[in-house]
Amino acid sequence: MSSATRLRRLDERREIIVVERGEHVSFANCGLPYHVSGTIAARDSLLLQTPQALANRFRLDVRVQTEAVAIDRAGRTISLRNVATGELSEQHFDTLVLSPGATPNIPAALDGDPRVHTLRDVADLDRIMEALAATVEDAPLQNAIVLGGGYIGVELAENLVARGLSVTIVQRGAQLLSALDAEMVAPFADHVLESGVALRLGVEVVGFDDDALSLSDGSVLPADLVFSAIGVRPASTLAAESGLALGPHGGILVDELHRTSDPAIFAVGDVAEKTDAATGEPRLLPLAGLANRHGRAVADTISGLDSSIPAAPSPRALGTAIVGFRGLTAASVGWNERELTAQGRAVRVMHSHPLSHAGYYPGAQMLSIKLLVDPASDRILGAQAVGRDGVDKRIDVIATAMSAGLPASALADLELAYAPQYGSAKDPVNLLGYLNRNRAAGTDATLQWHELQAALDSGAFLLDVRAPGQLAEGLIPGATHIPVEQLRERHHELPAGRIVVHCRVGQGAHTAARLLRNLGHDVVNLDGGYLTWRDAQRADALRDNSPASTPTTEGATR
Amino acid sequence: MSSATRLRRLDERREIIVVERGEHVSFANCGLPYHVSGTIAARDSLLLQTPQALANRFRLDVRVQTEAVAIDRAGRTISLRNVATGELSEQHFDTLVLSPGATPNIPAALDGDPRVHTLRDVADLDRIMEALAATVEDAPLQNAIVLGGGYIGVELAENLVARGLSVTIVQRGAQLLSALDAEMVAPFADHVLESGVALRLGVEVVGFDDDALSLSDGSVLPADLVFSAIGVRPASTLAAESGLALGPHGGILVDELHRTSDPAIFAVGDVAEKTDAATGEPRLLPLAGLANRHGRAVADTISGLDSSIPAAPSPRALGTAIVGFRGLTAASVGWNERELTAQGRAVRVMHSHPLSHAGYYPGAQMLSIKLLVDPASDRILGAQAVGRDGVDKRIDVIATAMSAGLPASALADLELAYAPQYGSAKDPVNLLGYLNRNRAAGTDATLQWHELQAALDSGAFLLDVRAPGQLAEGLIPGATHIPVEQLRERHHELPAGRIVVHCRVGQGAHTAARLLRNLGHDVVNLDGGYLTWRDAQRADALRDNSPASTPTTEGATR
Repeated sequence: MSSATRLRRLDERREIIVVERGEHVSFANCGLPYHVSGTIAARDSLLLQTPQALANRFRLDVRVQTEAVAIDRAGRTISLRNVATGELSEQHFDTLVLSPGATPNIPAALDGDPRVHTLRDVADLDRIMEALAATVEDAPLQNAIVLGGGYIGVELAENLVARGLSVTIVQRGAQLLSALDAEMVAPFADHVLESGVALRLGVEVVGFDDDALSLSDGSVLPADLVFSAIGVRPASTLAAESGLALGPHGGILVDELHRTSDPAIFAVGDVAEKTDAATGEPRLLPLAGLANRHGRAVADTISGLDSSIPAAPSPRALGTAIVGFRGLTAASVGWNERELTAQGRAVRVMHSHPLSHAGYYPGAQMLSIKLLVDPASDRILGAQAVGRDGVDKRIDVIATAMSAGLPASALADLELAYAPQYGSAKDPVNLLGYLNRNRAAGTDATLQWHELQAALDSGAFLLDVRAPGQLAEGLIPGATHIPVEQLRERHHELPAGRIVVHCRVGQGAHTAARLLRNLGHDVVNLDGGYLTWRDAQRADALRDNSPASTPTTEGATR
Repeated sequence: MSSATRLRRLDERREIIVVERGEHVSFANCGLPYHVSGTIAARDSLLLQTPQALANRFRLDVRVQTEAVAIDRAGRTISLRNVATGELSEQHFDTLVLSPGATPNIPAALDGDPRVHTLRDVADLDRIMEALAATVEDAPLQNAIVLGGGYIGVELAENLVARGLSVTIVQRGAQLLSALDAEMVAPFADHVLESGVALRLGVEVVGFDDDALSLSDGSVLPADLVFSAIGVRPASTLAAESGLALGPHGGILVDELHRTSDPAIFAVGDVAEKTDAATGEPRLLPLAGLANRHGRAVADTISGLDSSIPAAPSPRALGTAIVGFRGLTAASVGWNERELTAQGRAVRVMHSHPLSHAGYYPGAQMLSIKLLVDPASDRILGAQAVGRDGVDKRIDVIATAMSAGLPASALADLELAYAPQYGSAKDPVNLLGYLNRNRAAGTDATLQWHELQAALDSGAFLLDVRAPGQLAEGLIPGATHIPVEQLRERHHELPAGRIVVHCRVGQGAHTAARLLRNLGHDVVNLDGGYLTWRDAQRADALRDNSPASTPTTEGATR
């Protein structure tokens, strides 16, 4: 729709036909889960446009319940099938834009089972609402199982819990939200658990009999309602059958103007592979923002074929994404550490736990932020944030810096709006820039949580410099405690050799590490401090203890 | 303090002396107004550090109640005076960092009057709290007058109202918040009025007798408590007496490493002039973020004099600022239209009124955003935003884009985090980029609210294309109404010659303008639509009707 409406604004005379297999065009895909709970109360508010409204305002010929079944590229003709009647017709085109989207995946063991719901369009939502309503009249539904712990799975779980169902998320991977790293997701997962959602990590569904799912670990889950949210695959069958080139991930291959291997045919949205900003390689990124912008860009290109509207290549994609669950937000942009490590890339990693705004102003909330930087170029490769307030703002600022190619150190100098209820004179994003500068200049050397055990095994000395009142939060085994304020007097108590220093979040330890290094010691700072270490331990526990995933006391204090 | 603590972290051995005339170091300047209302309840929470804590952690020699009274630059000696005893002493320095801040201005007519309060430091706050407390025991204070309607004045008014006082803001200029343009401030001013604060715009204080202020328009204001918040001037007397070069605005002149005309002396914070990012000229920008960052940068430079820490020039300043008043936020970055016009610069102006997040998700709030762009280079010169939610995020994203030198059109392609509770698939910042692209490409031509009358006087036809249900909000005199959906049928009703088309916010009018232009008409779109026009009318009314500044019904519906 963003292609069609933009093209009409650019060109009043062109004939524009929109073909849609379903009943609805331009509905609020991203709002669908929120109607399940009634957060978005009116179903109609999800229907943003009707064919009639689009005809009136944009003179679009919108044909719903019409499926494109074949493309005759040589003849510039597309075969259409009336979904209701089965009637076939031919339609000539000068230019074709393919935006069929993606198809939700369903586990092989459940393929074709009519009891399994997906949530991709309004028809899916209607079926879900019908199933939920039926249970009010009959016996109440008890157990809703959400397969998949990604963005859609988490949103579905939030809304099913809000509706009063008992919800379990079954996730094949070892963590929720695979766009983030495990230690960043741990507090989010604990929050999901505390909301009453059960997690089953590292297992798959192998069967569905007698109202119960069989899992790969041999356990059985009672299941009154099953949702599959294990990702989508590009709906590229028609394109492939038409001989258009596909990319390595099964999506339609396009150039930077969204043109397929046939110059008269464009493809946008979830069906098309995007060009990744970091690697330059094709990647699937089924995100609404990219789909919207690329759709509009195609209209500019089409219009430019015979007018003065300049066609601008779309920039490469970062993959910025965000999800909320009952007041907690997780967001990410670019690549995570797990992916970068798998690619064999060197990466500079920084964790921080700043406050969302000045600590002395009421309501400040702790954020956890992670920044990933190419140590050779200082280029930002990715960022992740979790917290109750200000997560979207920080990720958007970093995404903007990444789009602009700002080096990580330049984050320190960004002039972000400051009054105490909005941020800090040194905003969390500025602090990331300082962390990075200290790392780049060698002013600070750090150790990651996953490197700690090896360092201790090699004889490193673990020094905890927190204020005494902070120790009640928990201890890292083997640490010796000397508050930073006593280090000048007591540093002679430290052994020769490497010292790993840690505090709660990394800042006091930075002061301590600088002090000790200036006094001649060999020091590294445990990145992210006790809190990141604790979150990483918790991530391990969540993975290992599943199916008995219940929050620890520590996790519960978040 | 950011200089001193950073320098200690870089260098354990250097002797670092901090001299402070008052009793407190490192207090929360920006939090002071919020203790007046008790929003920040504990006075102690504003005292971030004590001399003892700084000695313990950073081995700083902090001398409070110590005033620097003279600098012997040749002898590298500074004369110190003990404020309590009057005792004088000399202190040698290798490097000197001047950060004395700024002095609040007081109107000439009130100069020296002990009844006039300023709010710059903890001592000021203590005097204010004492004056307020005294009134509880005696007769209750009724009338608090805040002179100045800038950020501090507005914050003071918010907190005095919250404390139950009757508050009047007296502002010499024609509007509150001179960092923004008048039509952007109008809804903010209405919100201030609706909160019970009276506004007296365009008047000055000429006298203070018998518990009443005399104003320049001959009126008299009962005044139990008077606050001066009419800006600050750099506390540069000591620097000037020492022969250091001052800038054109009376602040200390510094280079990009914050070095004064004496290479052994640095100056940072409100006392130093900043280099403006847009003009390259010196400018006073008394902002906490710049002071903090520049202080730290100076430590890097000092350390680099004899170590390997690289000194990085600070980037030029944008002047990002933000203020809240009872749930409404106003923020700005760079220059406003009034200032750019006064500089004689060509400027492309865009107003928009997007929602803070997807309209179908509950809680979406309208924002007003203004973007100012250099039409020749597409460089972003400034931005302003007012609203209840998401203002800080959008200004921070634009400030980041400005820091990075992104052209305005690139705002369209930013990948900002989208889920319906956080933003829109096309974020308000993306939409600004599209508006700009349409303007740059000539796809859209617009007229500003202040150009409308001249256009109508020249015979232009004013066409209102809003939906019929939107007309109740108000009408622009002289407009003819044809909904955009009827234009294809009825455009022959339009006269020859120029047509000014408007809708509510500018988007429907863009569709209408494109349509009519494609049909051969000469069309311009009224930028920002009815809402911007209404806000501009309201700004005029606020300016003209003062002292009778009460909100109109229209304003009250905001």
